[in-house]
Amino acid sequence: MADGVRRSGPSCPGVPMPHRRTTTFTPPTAAVHRSVDVVVVGAGMAGLACARALHRRGADTIVLEARARVGGRVLTTSADGRLVELGGQFIGPGQSRAYALAAELGLHPLPTHASGRHLVEDTRGRPHRYAGSVPHCAPHALLDVALALRQFEHLARTIDCAAPWRSPHAARLDAATLGDWIRRHVRTRHGRRLFTLACEAVWSAQPAELSLLHALFYARAAGSFDALLRTEGGAQQDHLAEGAQALALRMADQLAGRVRLETAVRSITQHDGTVRVRTADGDTWRARHVVVAVPPTLACRIHYDPPLPAERDALTQRLPMGSVVKCVALYPAPFWRRENLSGQVTSLCGPMRAAFDSSPRDASYGVLLGFVEGSAARAHARRSPGDRRAAVTAQLARLFGPRAGEPQHYTEVDWAAEPWTRGGYAALFPPGAWTLLGPALRRPVGRIHWAGTETSTRWCGYIEGALDSAHRVCAEITAAEAG
Amino acid sequence: MADGVRRSGPSCPGVPMPHRRTTTFTPPTAAVHRSVDVVVVGAGMAGLACARALHRRGADTIVLEARARVGGRVLTTSADGRLVELGGQFIGPGQSRAYALAAELGLHPLPTHASGRHLVEDTRGRPHRYAGSVPHCAPHALLDVALALRQFEHLARTIDCAAPWRSPHAARLDAATLGDWIRRHVRTRHGRRLFTLACEAVWSAQPAELSLLHALFYARAAGSFDALLRTEGGAQQDHLAEGAQALALRMADQLAGRVRLETAVRSITQHDGTVRVRTADGDTWRARHVVVAVPPTLACRIHYDPPLPAERDALTQRLPMGSVVKCVALYPAPFWRRENLSGQVTSLCGPMRAAFDSSPRDASYGVLLGFVEGSAARAHARRSPGDRRAAVTAQLARLFGPRAGEPQHYTEVDWAAEPWTRGGYAALFPPGAWTLLGPALRRPVGRIHWAGTETSTRWCGYIEGALDSAHRVCAEITAAEAG
Repeated sequence: MADGVRRSGPSCPGVPMPHRRTTTFTPPTAAVHRSVDVVVVGAGMAGLACARALHRRGADTIVLEARARVGGRVLTTSADGRLVELGGQFIGPGQSRAYALAAELGLHPLPTHASGRHLVEDTRGRPHRYAGSVPHCAPHALLDVALALRQFEHLARTIDCAAPWRSPHAARLDAATLGDWIRRHVRTRHGRRLFTLACEAVWSAQPAELSLLHALFYARAAGSFDALLRTEGGAQQDHLAEGAQALALRMADQLAGRVRLETAVRSITQHDGTVRVRTADGDTWRARHVVVAVPPTLACRIHYDPPLPAERDALTQRLPMGSVVKCVALYPAPFWRRENLSGQVTSLCGPMRAAFDSSPRDASYGVLLGFVEGSAARAHARRSPGDRRAAVTAQLARLFGPRAGEPQHYTEVDWAAEPWTRGGYAALFPPGAWTLLGPALRRPVGRIHWAGTETSTRWCGYIEGALDSAHRVCAEITAAEAG
Repeated sequence: MADGVRRSGPSCPGVPMPHRRTTTFTPPTAAVHRSVDVVVVGAGMAGLACARALHRRGADTIVLEARARVGGRVLTTSADGRLVELGGQFIGPGQSRAYALAAELGLHPLPTHASGRHLVEDTRGRPHRYAGSVPHCAPHALLDVALALRQFEHLARTIDCAAPWRSPHAARLDAATLGDWIRRHVRTRHGRRLFTLACEAVWSAQPAELSLLHALFYARAAGSFDALLRTEGGAQQDHLAEGAQALALRMADQLAGRVRLETAVRSITQHDGTVRVRTADGDTWRARHVVVAVPPTLACRIHYDPPLPAERDALTQRLPMGSVVKCVALYPAPFWRRENLSGQVTSLCGPMRAAFDSSPRDASYGVLLGFVEGSAARAHARRSPGDRRAAVTAQLARLFGPRAGEPQHYTEVDWAAEPWTRGGYAALFPPGAWTLLGPALRRPVGRIHWAGTETSTRWCGYIEGALDSAHRVCAEITAAEAG
């Protein structure tokens, strides 16, 4: 094995010029059987954290990754030496594993810029300034939203995150959609729009796609819905000075030679206490355990022999990904700050529904990032790249003035078009999935273990959830080997 | 090519002793490129009908089928020379293509036995006799159900089957689940049970899993909900004397040498106006068009290059299959008829929720078939084969007396465990799928065309829908070639 070889492979379709930070890899050889203790499928945050933990316990571990890079839904590229965060990037209070990992790897959390006035763009594309966490709008709509939020938070506190299907009234909550709940509990048109916008921002999906039980679980797994929505004190509070992908790159470095890129897994066979993992190149890896650390909807595209139990298969048939396009614009400076603008945007007009200032600490350049979510993301993706850029920069100009309309650099990624992710931020649980098939989410199938942020009971859908799942699976395998 | 070779391959997992009627096949050869006009993936009713229609128009067509048999969700086996229908079998009025195909292939529709009293089993497992189409129960529950049915039928008539997302109030109907609708519109506990039972029988799923819009579409695509529920005058009116799989076997015979069994498709590549279809054996077929005629949730397990458009992929992430176990018991005679019982059962107790008499016309032996559906099917499947048989035969004994508890032959198939179907009867559309992604259901992707009963605007989920989709795709390809 040639450790520490530096490589740059072809870019992933849809990702323009990924910042190809070097990582260790093992060069391809002929199709042979190799033996390890554990094969990890997927070099996202969950897969890498799991492999690293197992490696530290002395297990001979290999990570097989379909892409030419590590990080999964976390992707930091660069433009003229400036970081561009194209995937998951935020961490916030309560995410103890993420902060601990960052500290251990020598990475530095930075607060997301939040001082100054935020902007809310109305349905006609007119920006209005506001302070605090609730956009400027009519008092009756605000009251309406506040009351609905209180009801939602109250319901969320009843959820058993370890087993949502055991929560009080689980069947009823899981037979309703979040969209239907909003229609019934938010009474004003403007209030519904705001509430829906918040849901789109959290799930990058339309509220109609989500089970109410899942929405409540997801909020509860983060503490509260408020924690998901907040910048200061919430899920968007910090990001890493070195870029979020540095978490993945440094974990991969520690796994020197144990991460194999451009190695898509095609089949997993279990027989007589041994697992065989076959790649698209025809290589076969023999192992005592395999950890599948990819989103559920991709996990079911691997061929399993014997076939997976019906309930596990049925669950993965039901967990689609949300749709999100992340847009990043770079400027010579965060000039909006001089006008006392925070860079934070909520928009009822679009294409971006939410935006943030993600400039570096020294403000040596300016970064605005935005999210096009749910059906807006799909509509956006149908346009030509030129039209997409024009629509986003026009919106930035409406919000921050003509200078914002001409960024030095503009990049976007449509995560639904990425064949090795197929959406974002995370899997959506439609009605019935939790109550009818929930127990199959984490239950190992023989020597196959399921990792990934979707399998977490804490901060499901976030980097923290991915790390949490790695911790659980590592313990699962350790216990199996000890037993 | 060796036409007319007879073969018997290994049985499909979960299917005990399939009745291996011979079909033509082409023997395996080394991995080579072969050229045809059209490759059809899947030898179910849609795939075979499509291949046959294209073949008749002179197109050089090959059907690649993963299983060792044709028929897909239609499967007729035999026990001691008696037919055992383990999959889809019923046809009914309005299904013009199915009757025409049966007639053309020399097959004979038989009415499903319906004379005599039906049975309804209450929650304590006590059978009650009734006549007509509505089970015996309290008048207020009956009125409750009747009013809800009327509302449902009224709503169903508003649906545009060609484009459900354009129906009036589509967004609202698609944000609700059928389960939630039942809870709100059926007021008595007993009424809800009956309505839910009817839904389980139609969709083999819990009402919470289905979008209300989809349930309305599905009913409308068959004419009405009543048409789906009825035996006489409805979807269960007839079955074929020769077994439903004879439709598939005879179509395959007409395609002499053009159906290749045990040939799973692993990838589909489109490039420069040519499609390449690669099988698990490593063979590559080159074609001008490919028809994917497998359920949506299996279609997304094929590897596509270039990757499918995000919207198509997102749709297939969202269309899981229902869960159903079909049980068949054989007796020396249909002895229940002598007690003026029709053999038709509706059960609030289970495991079977519905049963029918499917004995041959000459009553030379007796056949009772039953369906375990939705979450009951999953619970049933968790038990041992012996316990499953014991539970079903005990139920038959409760219903039809001790003789029914000791069938000469008993078979069941858990369709969710079948790796090349993964559920039944058909795909379920959860909330949001139709309105957010509906247009991607039938839209070809370059030279890839989508067939299967799920893509039909008429009798979606039935044999008729599969045949209808074949007709559409054949026209699609013909038009593409003419254009």
